[in-house]
Formats: sequence, structure tokens, C-alpha cells
Amino acid sequence: MTGIGIIGGTGYTGGELARLLCRHPDVEIRAMTSRQNAGRPVSEVHPYLRGYTDIEFTERISDTDGLDLVFVATPHGVAMSEVPRLLENGVKVIDLSGDYRLHDTAEYSKWYGHEHTDEENLRNAVYGLPELFRDKIRGADLVANPGCYATSAILACAPLMKSGLVSESVVVDSKSGTSGAGMVPSARTHHPNCSGSVIPYSVGSHRHTPEIEMAVDMFAGSHMSLTFVPHLVPIVRGILSDCYFDLLKDVTQEEVDAVYEAQYGKERFVHYVSEPSVREVAGSNHAEVASRVLGSKAVAFGTLDNLVKGASGQAVQCMNLMLNIDESAGLDFPGLGV
Amino acid sequence: MTGIGIIGGTGYTGGELARLLCRHPDVEIRAMTSRQNAGRPVSEVHPYLRGYTDIEFTERISDTDGLDLVFVATPHGVAMSEVPRLLENGVKVIDLSGDYRLHDTAEYSKWYGHEHTDEENLRNAVYGLPELFRDKIRGADLVANPGCYATSAILACAPLMKSGLVSESVVVDSKSGTSGAGMVPSARTHHPNCSGSVIPYSVGSHRHTPEIEMAVDMFAGSHMSLTFVPHLVPIVRGILSDCYFDLLKDVTQEEVDAVYEAQYGKERFVHYVSEPSVREVAGSNHAEVASRVLGSKAVAFGTLDNLVKGASGQAVQCMNLMLNIDESAGLDFPGLGV
Amino acid sequence: MTGIGIIGGTGYTGGELARLLCRHPDVEIRAMTSRQNAGRPVSEVHPYLRGYTDIEFTERISDTDGLDLVFVATPHGVAMSEVPRLLENGVKVIDLSGDYRLHDTAEYSKWYGHEHTDEENLRNAVYGLPELFRDKIRGADLVANPGCYATSAILACAPLMKSGLVSESVVVDSKSGTSGAGMVPSARTHHPNCSGSVIPYSVGSHRHTPEIEMAVDMFAGSHMSLTFVPHLVPIVRGILSDCYFDLLKDVTQEEVDAVYEAQYGKERFVHYVSEPSVREVAGSNHAEVASRVLGSKAVAFGTLDNLVKGASGQAVQCMNLMLNIDESAGLDFPGLGV
Amino acid sequence: MTGIGIIGGTGYTGGELARLLCRHPDVEIRAMTSRQNAGRPVSEVHPYLRGYTDIEFTERISDTDGLDLVFVATPHGVAMSEVPRLLENGVKVIDLSGDYRLHDTAEYSKWYGHEHTDEENLRNAVYGLPELFRDKIRGADLVANPGCYATSAILACAPLMKSGLVSESVVVDSKSGTSGAGMVPSARTHHPNCSGSVIPYSVGSHRHTPEIEMAVDMFAGSHMSLTFVPHLVPIVRGILSDCYFDLLKDVTQEEVDAVYEAQYGKERFVHYVSEPSVREVAGSNHAEVASRVLGSKAVAFGTLDNLVKGASGQAVQCMNLMLNIDESAGLDFPGLGV
Repeated sequence: MTGIGIIGGTGYTGGELARLLCRHPDVEIRAMTSRQNAGRPVSEVHPYLRGYTDIEFTERISDTDGLDLVFVATPHGVAMSEVPRLLENGVKVIDLSGDYRLHDTAEYSKWYGHEHTDEENLRNAVYGLPELFRDKIRGADLVANPGCYATSAILACAPLMKSGLVSESVVVDSKSGTSGAGMVPSARTHHPNCSGSVIPYSVGSHRHTPEIEMAVDMFAGSHMSLTFVPHLVPIVRGILSDCYFDLLKDVTQEEVDAVYEAQYGKERFVHYVSEPSVREVAGSNHAEVASRVLGSKAVAFGTLDNLVKGASGQAVQCMNLMLNIDESAGLDFPGLGV
Repeated sequence: MTGIGIIGGTGYTGGELARLLCRHPDVEIRAMTSRQNAGRPVSEVHPYLRGYTDIEFTERISDTDGLDLVFVATPHGVAMSEVPRLLENGVKVIDLSGDYRLHDTAEYSKWYGHEHTDEENLRNAVYGLPELFRDKIRGADLVANPGCYATSAILACAPLMKSGLVSESVVVDSKSGTSGAGMVPSARTHHPNCSGSVIPYSVGSHRHTPEIEMAVDMFAGSHMSLTFVPHLVPIVRGILSDCYFDLLKDVTQEEVDAVYEAQYGKERFVHYVSEPSVREVAGSNHAEVASRVLGSKAVAFGTLDNLVKGASGQAVQCMNLMLNIDESAGLDFPGLGV
Repeated sequence: MTGIGIIGGTGYTGGELARLLCRHPDVEIRAMTSRQNAGRPVSEVHPYLRGYTDIEFTERISDTDGLDLVFVATPHGVAMSEVPRLLENGVKVIDLSGDYRLHDTAEYSKWYGHEHTDEENLRNAVYGLPELFRDKIRGADLVANPGCYATSAILACAPLMKSGLVSESVVVDSKSGTSGAGMVPSARTHHPNCSGSVIPYSVGSHRHTPEIEMAVDMFAGSHMSLTFVPHLVPIVRGILSDCYFDLLKDVTQEEVDAVYEAQYGKERFVHYVSEPSVREVAGSNHAEVASRVLGSKAVAFGTLDNLVKGASGQAVQCMNLMLNIDESAGLDFPGLGV
Repeated sequence: MTGIGIIGGTGYTGGELARLLCRHPDVEIRAMTSRQNAGRPVSEVHPYLRGYTDIEFTERISDTDGLDLVFVATPHGVAMSEVPRLLENGVKVIDLSGDYRLHDTAEYSKWYGHEHTDEENLRNAVYGLPELFRDKIRGADLVANPGCYATSAILACAPLMKSGLVSESVVVDSKSGTSGAGMVPSARTHHPNCSGSVIPYSVGSHRHTPEIEMAVDMFAGSHMSLTFVPHLVPIVRGILSDCYFDLLKDVTQEEVDAVYEAQYGKERFVHYVSEPSVREVAGSNHAEVASRVLGSKAVAFGTLDNLVKGASGQAVQCMNLMLNIDESAGLDFPGLGV
């Protein structure tokens, strides 16, 4: 068994990593950190793991012996102080925060509001979206795991942007479940406030904006100019992103379908479908993409479970690639459906 | 007291009309029809009206004596067979269905799939959106009450389209509560199917599309080309419409604010705000509009309660205008907030 | 107009009081306090009140001139330091917190965990449930407004306990919406935690337990022994309490119906119905009670909107009685229904 | 691989069976019937199974060659016409409907409203609750899979009833998600009707009442007299049952804890916990039981996912026992947690 560590195991993505890894056939969680829960059994903090793991949270990972790969699932700004040491010790790293997603330190400071202290690794980090950058991930020591909104939008936008059929200006209107906001209670996720409502927030200023543009540009070799408006909707797991394009010429539905089929036809976890459904993918690592030509416009939909394909599931998928394991190991189960 | 009739009183908009009118100071419901509930007390079918009305449903309105105005709250295609007789008898009519909303019979057939049999009244019907067409409504005998999606989008789009600041191509991404689907159970509104999901439907083919274009064109004197994607979200009351525009030149936030303030600054029921909130307006006739400049784009938001400002409340507002009563009579109460 | 003050206007019950009073025909809010929002317009903190009130929050009520009655809507433990001064200045008081609900200071300390500092007024406070204690409320200077769970359970239990048909041991299983938890975010009301769940809490130790026993005993002249289990359910407004009794002898459904009809047949806000519905009463001051004989047991249901009949609406109803105004003034509107 | 058939594969329990069996290591679905979807791929009707099964629905199972066990997941009244033939052909059967749950034909007619036509098999059917009747299930040819409410209540009640600490009269107040109502839309599960509400129904007359009494009696060797009130709550997956007992003597919390620990301490899927959580078990075959002494009463809680441990998961657990496979095969994964 390959040894795995998780830094930051209290939150939703940390718990979800453990939930997925505890039934992974080839790896084993050997360390899991939590500042506030150090010394407590993991299955006491995440009771759904009762019977599936018997390890305890530790304050930190003092010894990397026996760890081949470490996931970092901490708030933004923490990973960059942990990653250099891990890499130096020969441990591969997948960072689920935003610390290593953007191109350069200037861009990072602009969107995250503080300096980046690990420029070298930032430059070399691979963006962990397997369906678009599979080969790079295979050879990577450090993977920046994509954001949840970003994954849903990039999967929908990238093929069409690469096709040359659409102009560079794209509107993405996303609807996210509340688990995307994390486990810390806030006014926005207080049930009486968000239940019964649809709440746009960070209009035009969400940190996933440059990440989406960067990944699409990298894949499509083009320049994407993004207008991004995220919304909170009263569901727990799931994101739907509607992406609106201007067509550069008369395009048929069949031509658009062909673009996506060519891209995703053989993928295990991304499916080009006629109607996207949050319910079909919730609880699983599967994502759905759909697209419709509407006169001189096209709309593409991307949907996924923000905690699985939008976070911890995708991280496990990257891990499988980095460790040269079957890419779907530990992830090969269907969504809840209902 | 002015005498009022309601044709089609079993559904959500019929019940909501009764809920509003039962505490209206100047009018009185004298007849309310329902095919399936004829002979039953209205308050048995709508128990929340217990103590507020003691009339019974009748099969139809056989005698229009004592009725000054009749609301028609039936499915599409029914009103056009009732309206001519009512108008001939000197009764004013407000139709809450789609029968009298579009310009001409050809357009109607195209979107509703059957012939229109009352061309003359169709031509003369006034579109009942008071904040844009108040004077015409005052003098009307027949008002076509706007659709719920349409009201939310038109309120957000019309001022900006008229300002000349934006191009004619607009994307509207709307999110609606499930009460907008009416009272008849269906697979889409079955709780296990729609709870926990966000469902796009009628993509590019929803009947409110031509209605929105028509009303905005009429108000703005321009041509609007609309891409409209409605979604079902798991709330009961409320719509949020996000409307995306291309700016024709460099525009400041202040200029856009000024456009909306000029339009809605003195309105009782439409408010230009910094952040739209479904919760603030739910349960009331109030609507909120907001707008943000995002580089070369602008987004405008429109939010309202689909059963009140998006249907029965707006119909009562039109009634007040047609009967020369204070426009806010029976409607002057705040939203639930929480 | 009669002058009204509200101490503690930031929370849900304070906002709801303002929402109800702003359209009350006979009274006027002249002061509203908030420590954290002093100096801000009330309609900025509660945007649904925009256009309905133009007063600003003050730090405290320094001058009671012009105030005939003050509502105290603060957390437990605050009212007892405000009430004596108000009463001395000849101002009537309705306290929405738990400070004046229990009989004596010992009982208070036991359930609330700190001393009561105003024994004299505690002894004289009237329990503000109009349908059971109307005459006492009419003459009261200080009313302790009932808790939301308590109101739903007492309305269902009191008539049957008084009838002598049931034994003194009663089980109450209550289901409450999340607005009952107040406006401060917490882990329990964090959307990802409470949506999709039903959460029992304070099992056998909730503070409404002694309040329910006390009020029922007072009304029924008996001793009630209560087992109370409250639950959080993922709705915002509404409580349903199921109350289970042992019948002391063979009783018919008709006999039980007669007990409740005799009690509530003439009430404006409490209705004895065949099936209780949270939706019918949500948004209104109406409550529903139902009851069913099941062999040697009977179950009684009580349902209401926890913020209206379970808090602020009932407080306004008490105010009307204390000020000798029509009891339903400002409250006479139906529930949302849908 | 062992060959499996499913009669009635369109509904929620049929789809859930397929979802579980498609990743079961030892069995293979070879036939799946659906009257309305015959000829269509299963993964078209249940899109979440895309990539997990490539079989098509057939009208019926004409040939039982290659089938070792068949699940019947049809509405009540259908199984009894299919089961005799299957058993005669040497195929084991697990019926997920109510057809074989009750003792005798008279009891069946009383609660289901029509005659039972297969008395012989009814008498021999084993009640499929593994934690209580494991040995009998192992040797059974026909298993009647328990109802969802029934499983949650029986798991909570049976140990305490057997302990002799409580009296025979028990109140069960259950709260169920809407998926328990099945896939056919109805007024009760129409989103605008059930969202935002808590709805008691079939008060004292639900068909799971005699089933719970029978199973508890059989296990505890006592007579249980049940008052059962089920409720619909606006969640999709999950049931919480609160079971209220009268204690026959002074009992400590430790004594009650010991009763449950002795019963469930070694179980893989039933856990005695301090606080039951629907969220912890949703999506999994795990159930939680908790209990609290409250003076002269005790309350026991049972919670589970109604589609898994309350239906299809428990059926697979029975299948494993009947086929002499590891009892947790195909079911050994944790709940969603969030």
C-alpha cells in the first residue's frame, strides 16, 4: 500500500478525501492533521468514517517517512508554507487550495490579497484537471487541484474555445450548493438566510475568474475574456455553470456536438449529454457537459459535485495519475440519482 | 365596493388573487369559478382563506351583473374564448395567462402551438407592466398581465436598453421557484427530482422569450435580441434573472446607476438596490433591480415573488389603475425578509 | 397614534415586530434600539422595511416620553435589567424573551443557569397567550410573551388536559424551522449541516419544558408531566408539535372534537381543523390545532409560524389587548398557503 | 458470477438496487424488467448508471435460466402473482413490496384492502431484517424485505422491548424524506406543497404499523401496542423515528446503553450512538440508533437512508446472507456526511 497524508483534515474537502481514500484499493491514509482536533480519532470528528479508519488527528506531519504523497486541504495561504519542505523530502503534493493555481506571484497577490512566498514551485505546479492536462499531471510532483466553480466552467468552455467557433468573450453564470462555502458557519450560509433564496455574490470579482481564463487559454491556445457571476443556491452538493458564447459564424448543433464528443467521448468521468443533471452526478466523481446552439449564441453547461469532481474526487484522480495507478481507482461508482 | 370576478380560482394565481383581494379596501370578490370545485366553499379549497371569504366556487360566471372587472387565471388558450363576451358586457378584463400578451396571431401560433381566435382584442390588449406602461393601463379595458420570468427580466433590461449604452443582444439566465410551474404535480416538480438540483429547461424556447423582447422593444424603441435560459431551483416563491449586456462604450457604474435611478427612483414597488435579495421581496409585490458594470459588460438583476409581482399582485396593481384606485391599495405590505 | 418602543430590534423577532407594526392602524414605532446598529436606519438593516419606516436605531431608550408600551426582544437575561425602570415610568412592557415566563426565581435559575434579579415583577407577570389568558392580559402591565414551541404545544394540550379525558403524562415531539434558532449563525443552522436532515436536540432539557407544564397546569387546574423532544427541520418558518396522550377511558373522536370546538370555535387566530398544515399558517398569526383518537391514545397537533403566532404576532395580539384595541388589528391577514 | 434479476426496475428502489449491484464483486444483473420502459437501456432511464450497466429493460422475465435470485421491486399486490413461479423454478426471491411481510392473509387483507393469493408462501416468508433475524434469512428461499419506516422503528424498539424494562405501549413519531413516497408525482410530494412544511399523514393507519408490531413481537417475545404517526419532511433521503416508551421501573442511562450495546456492538451496519444524524447515514447502508432515559420515560431514535438500509441496501444485505457471500459485500462504504 502507498502511504498518504492529509494536511487539514477537519474541513469538508479533508473529510471527503478520507471518505474516498478509505475504500481505495491501493493507498492508505497514514497521517491526517488538524490543529483544533489533534489527538481525537478522525471518526469522532467525521462520524460517517466510523469503522472505516482508526487513525487520530495529529497537530502536524513531523515525519514524512512512509508518505509518498500528501494532500493539502487548508485555507488559502497555508499550503505555500508547507509545500517546499514536503517536496524537498521527496513527497509528491496535491494542493486543494488556491495557492498554486495561478501563473505567477503578481497575479496571485492581486486576487488573494497577500504575497506569494514560493515562487519557484508556483511556476512549476501543474493544474490538475486530468481530462485536459492528463500527461502533465502524470509527471508532476506538485499539482494544484482546480477550484469547484473552475472545473465546472472549464470542462464546458475549453473544447468550444479551442474549436475556433466562438469569440473570446464568455459569460459564465454559476449556481453552487452551500457545501462549497466550507464548514465554517457564516451569515450567508445561515439556513434562514440562504434557504428559499438565490444569492449572487463576488459579482465579477471571484477568485476562480483568473483560474478559469488561465486554464482555458492554456488548453485552447487562445485568449478568453471571462465575465463570471457565481450564485449560492439552497442545495448542499452540486454546481451548474451556464456558459454563454457568441458564435463567430453559422454553426449547427451537430458541429458543436462533434466538438464535445471528440473531446470527452472516451472519458470515464466527463460525459457529454443532452440535459445536464446535478442529481445524476451528486455524490460521485462524474461530471456532465451539455451544449446548445441558440441562433448566434451557444450555451454550454457544466455540472458536477463540488466536493468530489470539484475538489477531493478530482484530487484522488490526480493522485492516481501521479502514482501510476488506474485513474478511476477508488472513484468508480455512480452518482446518487435521487 | 367594486365587484370583482375570478375565472379559474383553483390554481396558485387564482388563490393568490383571492388572498390579496380579501383584504383590499375598495373591492369585493363576488364570483369565483372552478370547474373541478364548483359548489365547494373557496376556503375549503384554499384553507388559508378560512375566515376571509365565504363565497363558493361556481362552474362559470353566468351573469356579469355586479361585476366591474374580471380576472382570468386559466391555462393558456382558455381566456380567448371568455374575453370577448366579458368585454361586450362592459366588464373590464385582466388576463393572467399568455393569451393576450403577444402582438399578433401569427406570433401567438408560433409560440403557443394553436390558433388565436380573438384577433381584434389581441391587437388592443395593453401589456400590464405598470412601471413601464402606466398610462396605457389606466385607459385599458383589456390588460394582458405579464409572465413572471418576463416581469423580472423586463424590469432589469428595459432602462438599460433604452439608455443606448448597450448592444441589442442580451443573455437572460433566470432562476425560478417551483410555484411558477403551477399546482399540477409533474416529474419536474416532484420533490425528490427537483430538491437538491438546479434544472435548466425550455432552453432557448420558453414562451416568455418573445414577450420579453416585445415589451422591451415597445418601451425602449429599440430591437432586443434575447437568449433566454430559465432554470428551476428548489425554492417555492421567487425569481432571480441575471441579464448580461455588451456595453457599447466605456461606461461608469455611476452612469448605469443614474439610468435606473431615473427610471425607478419614485416607484412604490420597484427598487434599485446594491444587492438583489429574493428573501426581501418574497411574499410581497415589491421587486428589486440591481446592476453592475464589469469591464465591457454589464449585468442587471431582477428579482420578485413570482406569484405576487410576477402574477397576482401585479394584476391587482393593474386593476387599481384601471379602476382609478390608489395604485398600491391592497398591496402595501413588506416582504417576509426571513 | 399610540407610541411604541422596541428594545432589541436587530434580530428576527425585532424585525418581525417592526414588519407587523409598520402597517398597524393604531400604533406607531417611535424608538427601536440596537447596540451593534445604533445610528443606522432600520430599513438598512431590514431592507424589506424600506419605505415602511424611516426611524433609526438608537443605542438605548433614554427617554420614555411618548412611549405607551415597549417590546423587549433581547436574548435571555437582558430584559430583567430593563423592565423595572420601564414599569416605574408607567410604560407597559411585553417581554419576548424567557425572563418573565416562569413562576419563581428558583425555577428560573434551574433552567436558565443564572439568578433572576427582578423577583417582584416575575411574580406579577402575565403569561401572554390570549386564547387561554385573555382577561389577565387585558389588565396587565407586564406580559411574558410565550415561546414558539410552547405556544404550539400549549394550544394543542391545554383543552384536552382540562377535559379530564387524558392522563397527566404527555409526550410532545416538536419540529421547528430554523428561524427559531435566531439570526446568529451556528454549526447547527449551517446550511450544509441542517439541510437534508432532521435533528433532535436538547432532548428532555429544553427550556420550554417547564413553561409548557406551567401554562397548561394554570389553565387546566391539573398537573402535567411533560416529555419534550424538539427537532430542527429544514424549513425556515413554522413549527409542528405532535402531542401524545393516554386516554383515561373509552373516548370517541366526536367527544375530543367537541372539547376543542368549545375552546377555539370562536377564536380569530386558532382553528380546530382536520389536518394541520404548516404552509397554511406560515407568514400569518393563525395557528391550527387538530386531534385524533387512536385506540387508547390521542394525538393532538399544534402548528403555527414561529416568528408570528409563536413570537412577534402573538406579542402584537397581547399589545392590542393591553391597549384596548381590536385584538386582531395589524394581524388580520391570511397565511401564504403556498 | 451469480446471476441476478430485478422485476420492476423503473422506480427508486429498482434503480437503487442496480446502483448497488453494479459494483458488487460477486453478482451480476442479468435481467431487469419494466413495463413502460421495455426495450430501453437501463442507463437511459437511470442516467447515473451510464457506464455501469449495458443491459436493457425487458417486459418480463420469461426465462429464469441463469438467475439465482430475483428481487421484486413492484407496487404492493404484484409480487404475489410472480413469486410462486419463481420459487417453483428454484429461484430465490427477495420481495421489496409489502406482499409477504405480514403473518397471514386476513391481516394482509385488512391493511392492504385486497385478498392475498399466495397463502402458502406468505406463511413461510422470512422477514429480512438481518440484525434481528440473520439465521433465518440465511436459510430462506423467500425474504420479505422490511419497509423503510419499519426498519428504523424496529431497530430502535426491539432491544428495549426485549429487555423487559419498558411497557408494551409505544409511540413512534417518524419523519421521512420524500423519496420514500416513490417516483410517481402526487399532490403531497409536489415541491410547492411539501417544501417548507412538515406533513403528518396516514395518522394511526399506516401499513407499517402491523409490520413493526409483528417484527418486534417476534424478536422480543412480547406484545407491542404501537401508536404510529409518520410525517413527510422536506428532505429526499432519510428517516428519523422517535420511539417513546414508559419505563416499568427506575432505570439508569447506563442500563439502557448496555441493552443496545449488547445488541448492536458487533454489527457492521447498525451503530449505537449518542446523537443520531440523518446526514451521517444518507447514501449508505448504515443505520444509527440512540436512546435517552427521561425520567419515567425513555426515547429511542432510529435513523437510516430509506432507499438503502430502508430498502435496496437491506435487500442486498439479505441477498448476501442467502447466497452465503460476505454480508457487507457491495455495501461497505460510508455515508455522505455532508
